[in-house]
Amino acid sequence: MSETKSLTISELAEHVAGSLVGDGNIRIERVANLDSAGAGDIAYVEDEKFFEAGRSSRAACLIVPKDFLSSGNGPATEQALEPALIEVSKPKLAFALVAGLLHPQKRREPFVHPSAVIAESADIDLTVFIGPHVAIGEGTRIGSGTRIEAGVVIGDHVTVGRDCVLHPGVILYDDVTIGDRVILHAGVCIGADGFGYVRDDTGYHKFPQRGTVVIEDDVELGAHTCVDRAALGQTRIGRGTKIDNLVHVGHNCDIGARVVIAAQTGISGSVIIEDDVVIGGQVGFGDHIRVQSGAVIGSKAGILPGKIVRPGVWWGIPIQPLDEYKRLNAHLGRLPQMREEIKELRRQLEELKKSQSD
Amino acid sequence: MSETKSLTISELAEHVAGSLVGDGNIRIERVANLDSAGAGDIAYVEDEKFFEAGRSSRAACLIVPKDFLSSGNGPATEQALEPALIEVSKPKLAFALVAGLLHPQKRREPFVHPSAVIAESADIDLTVFIGPHVAIGEGTRIGSGTRIEAGVVIGDHVTVGRDCVLHPGVILYDDVTIGDRVILHAGVCIGADGFGYVRDDTGYHKFPQRGTVVIEDDVELGAHTCVDRAALGQTRIGRGTKIDNLVHVGHNCDIGARVVIAAQTGISGSVIIEDDVVIGGQVGFGDHIRVQSGAVIGSKAGILPGKIVRPGVWWGIPIQPLDEYKRLNAHLGRLPQMREEIKELRRQLEELKKSQSD
Amino acid sequence: MSETKSLTISELAEHVAGSLVGDGNIRIERVANLDSAGAGDIAYVEDEKFFEAGRSSRAACLIVPKDFLSSGNGPATEQALEPALIEVSKPKLAFALVAGLLHPQKRREPFVHPSAVIAESADIDLTVFIGPHVAIGEGTRIGSGTRIEAGVVIGDHVTVGRDCVLHPGVILYDDVTIGDRVILHAGVCIGADGFGYVRDDTGYHKFPQRGTVVIEDDVELGAHTCVDRAALGQTRIGRGTKIDNLVHVGHNCDIGARVVIAAQTGISGSVIIEDDVVIGGQVGFGDHIRVQSGAVIGSKAGILPGKIVRPGVWWGIPIQPLDEYKRLNAHLGRLPQMREEIKELRRQLEELKKSQSD
Repeated sequence: MSETKSLTISELAEHVAGSLVGDGNIRIERVANLDSAGAGDIAYVEDEKFFEAGRSSRAACLIVPKDFLSSGNGPATEQALEPALIEVSKPKLAFALVAGLLHPQKRREPFVHPSAVIAESADIDLTVFIGPHVAIGEGTRIGSGTRIEAGVVIGDHVTVGRDCVLHPGVILYDDVTIGDRVILHAGVCIGADGFGYVRDDTGYHKFPQRGTVVIEDDVELGAHTCVDRAALGQTRIGRGTKIDNLVHVGHNCDIGARVVIAAQTGISGSVIIEDDVVIGGQVGFGDHIRVQSGAVIGSKAGILPGKIVRPGVWWGIPIQPLDEYKRLNAHLGRLPQMREEIKELRRQLEELKKSQSD
Repeated sequence: MSETKSLTISELAEHVAGSLVGDGNIRIERVANLDSAGAGDIAYVEDEKFFEAGRSSRAACLIVPKDFLSSGNGPATEQALEPALIEVSKPKLAFALVAGLLHPQKRREPFVHPSAVIAESADIDLTVFIGPHVAIGEGTRIGSGTRIEAGVVIGDHVTVGRDCVLHPGVILYDDVTIGDRVILHAGVCIGADGFGYVRDDTGYHKFPQRGTVVIEDDVELGAHTCVDRAALGQTRIGRGTKIDNLVHVGHNCDIGARVVIAAQTGISGSVIIEDDVVIGGQVGFGDHIRVQSGAVIGSKAGILPGKIVRPGVWWGIPIQPLDEYKRLNAHLGRLPQMREEIKELRRQLEELKKSQSD
Repeated sequence: MSETKSLTISELAEHVAGSLVGDGNIRIERVANLDSAGAGDIAYVEDEKFFEAGRSSRAACLIVPKDFLSSGNGPATEQALEPALIEVSKPKLAFALVAGLLHPQKRREPFVHPSAVIAESADIDLTVFIGPHVAIGEGTRIGSGTRIEAGVVIGDHVTVGRDCVLHPGVILYDDVTIGDRVILHAGVCIGADGFGYVRDDTGYHKFPQRGTVVIEDDVELGAHTCVDRAALGQTRIGRGTKIDNLVHVGHNCDIGARVVIAAQTGISGSVIIEDDVVIGGQVGFGDHIRVQSGAVIGSKAGILPGKIVRPGVWWGIPIQPLDEYKRLNAHLGRLPQMREEIKELRRQLEELKKSQSD
């Protein structure tokens, strides 16, 4: 949760480069749902099917698309003037920006809790917040404005950038590198050994897991997501990439910028995911896959090792283009009918034979 | 693990409203498996196929269905009288109740470990147990009899009810509410930001995740299960619902009472699950689904966004009624045969044509 | 990450029983990739398709298969003599063994951090390392050389063997037993209650979860993997078994020796997995399954409760032999063609009928 400050509607309109309709001097204190919004609240409408709900909202201010006003008929429009309006081309985006302004990330005053255990050789910026029961190892550096919540454990020779938030229970193994403005939710684990063994007659021997992990700027990782260190070399999560809860990223993966990965997806070793790819939840990747920019992979899809996934929308196990997947499913639905048709053909054929032999 | 106390067979029979056959004065100390049970142990038989094993069990007492005694023939019946019997209509349920009596939850004396860091404004009942390395934030309230194990981190303005157990490493973000008698296993994470962003040309902007989470009475959540806070409004887990390990519950989900969800299932945002629904493991939910009371969803099923799941048993990706799923699978199994039939029809047709043209 | 020491090429060759070609006195400091290797580095080539890359590598030493030298033509061979070679039959295995020698597991001097909270009745070997914010319960025993990193929580009456590594945030519930040389990655949770309830009219009652967990020698468990305690009896992970991140092992499972399980697989209660089985990622097991030695189960497979999985390679939901799975998929791919064939047969049949009636 974040804090709250109040701003005038004019200030908010200016922040999102929107056109103000109504009284710009009213102060707004928080973002809210259309339904529950009241005095001091700002809400938004983007989809036309919520225009009606927008008109009856009791929010002090609504962020609306440019056709919102013109879409209503007379009386509705006048009612709609009761809340002040901010007209923009992308209301949901403007709403997110306004929320960022009204409710900035919780800030903590620079502080080091006396229970924190910090190696003498660690280099902690003076503006850092460090909560209770934190442990920070030898030679580790923490950048300015970063907030490290209770129970976080950071190994040796780790670098954490500026203005990051490490939520409670985050664990960073030795030698990993975290960029600026990175948000790691509770229990995120970065740099555990990759899963690599070599078998002989006696059992499994650990293949060296001596590489590292680099998390670039503006990445956000969900609770309990695990990113393994490389065997040799590095595992990378690119700038601005957002990953949901309980995701597994194997050793030596290279994930580009602005990639989105939903919850519980699992990525095997040495997978390359190019910039701007979108991946659903519970997807499974074999190793050595390359996903090209422009690809969208549906939830629960499964991708065989070594595959190159081209731009387009992909679906199923193993993945296929969404169109083909739908076509195949339609064919499957017709299977009972096909059987009937075969039976009927056989019957007719028999009849024909019989009539011929008569 | 829980503690142990001894009770007489009569006391146990009374507790489960069962009929006692045999000596009620023997003391029972623990529940056990049919196979390994001995003196001081109580076991149960419910399924007829284990009656034989029941008869040869060396348990001091057996909980049995009403037809257990009558089902045996002479000598077996007399043997069966060696362990005392408690006859009930639902032996497994009675066994669970007896276990609850013999082995109550581990209780801890009221205590606050000196290493715990508790905000001055927190309101902690005097009967609470707080283990080592716990952190509790500003304005947080903890109800009577609640046990907070080592390394738990609780944010600001959290409410935890009475007689809860928070196992080691549980993390509660700010502002969440936990009911009475809730059990949170190790690493449970409640209230992390939901996964919501708005994209523009530069990348992803966080959609506000400013709502909260409410966990109602008698809920139990498995290890490392994550329940995200709502964007706006609340995420809810209803009374008496039981969730297994490593489950993901997205923002704004509304899960009813007495729902059961097995391990590794993932629930996207704004899903509504009504009371008494049963969900298998590794199921995936798209967002804005509604599952109606009376629905049972098989393991590994996948459900498309926006779907309404009616009462009945559902299976597959995407889900379909179990009957249809089985029928489709039967058709799939006949595909090779269908191909052969088509070939044969073609052959016969050719023959027919030929004979006709002759 | 592990530490580093330098050894001569002769010493390394001897360690892996390989034949040395070149100068054995050069000292090697670390393992490296073929591409990035330079002075002081040892790399390996196993697959013939990397022989060319091997020849142009700048590693000080290469571990190669016996046909590496003979496979090159003249000049290439001479170039190949620039790095010293160690010829072995299994280069990747030898490389892993060399890595183990050059980079032994990070060792910690015997130490107990003053912030650790250790019960008086715990029996901690004098050579153990215990990091900050650790908690260890009553009657627990920790063997020699074991390393317990920051924030680990160990319950009462736990046994941990010799030379184990418990990474940060590991949680061991009461009464579990861990063998020797076990590696538990961050957030591993062992001994949480299994997921078992009995329903009556009022809701769910907990079925007793009073058994324990035994993790045998040389097991490695990935980050956030959960192994639940047995209801009655024990859950077992056999000697030398390796499990990846975010895996769920239900109560009363019995997993044999040298089993490999990839990330995010979920195993329901009372599943038996025999020695040497190999299991992919995101596989789902119903309860009471038995997987026999010699079985290999592909990623994302789903296995119905009670099934016996025989030796061989298995795939799909529900699982079937890989050959059948492939054949079925081929049939599926021909569905559109089958429909066309049926149409064509019908057309021809109509024609035939018509010609006959003429």
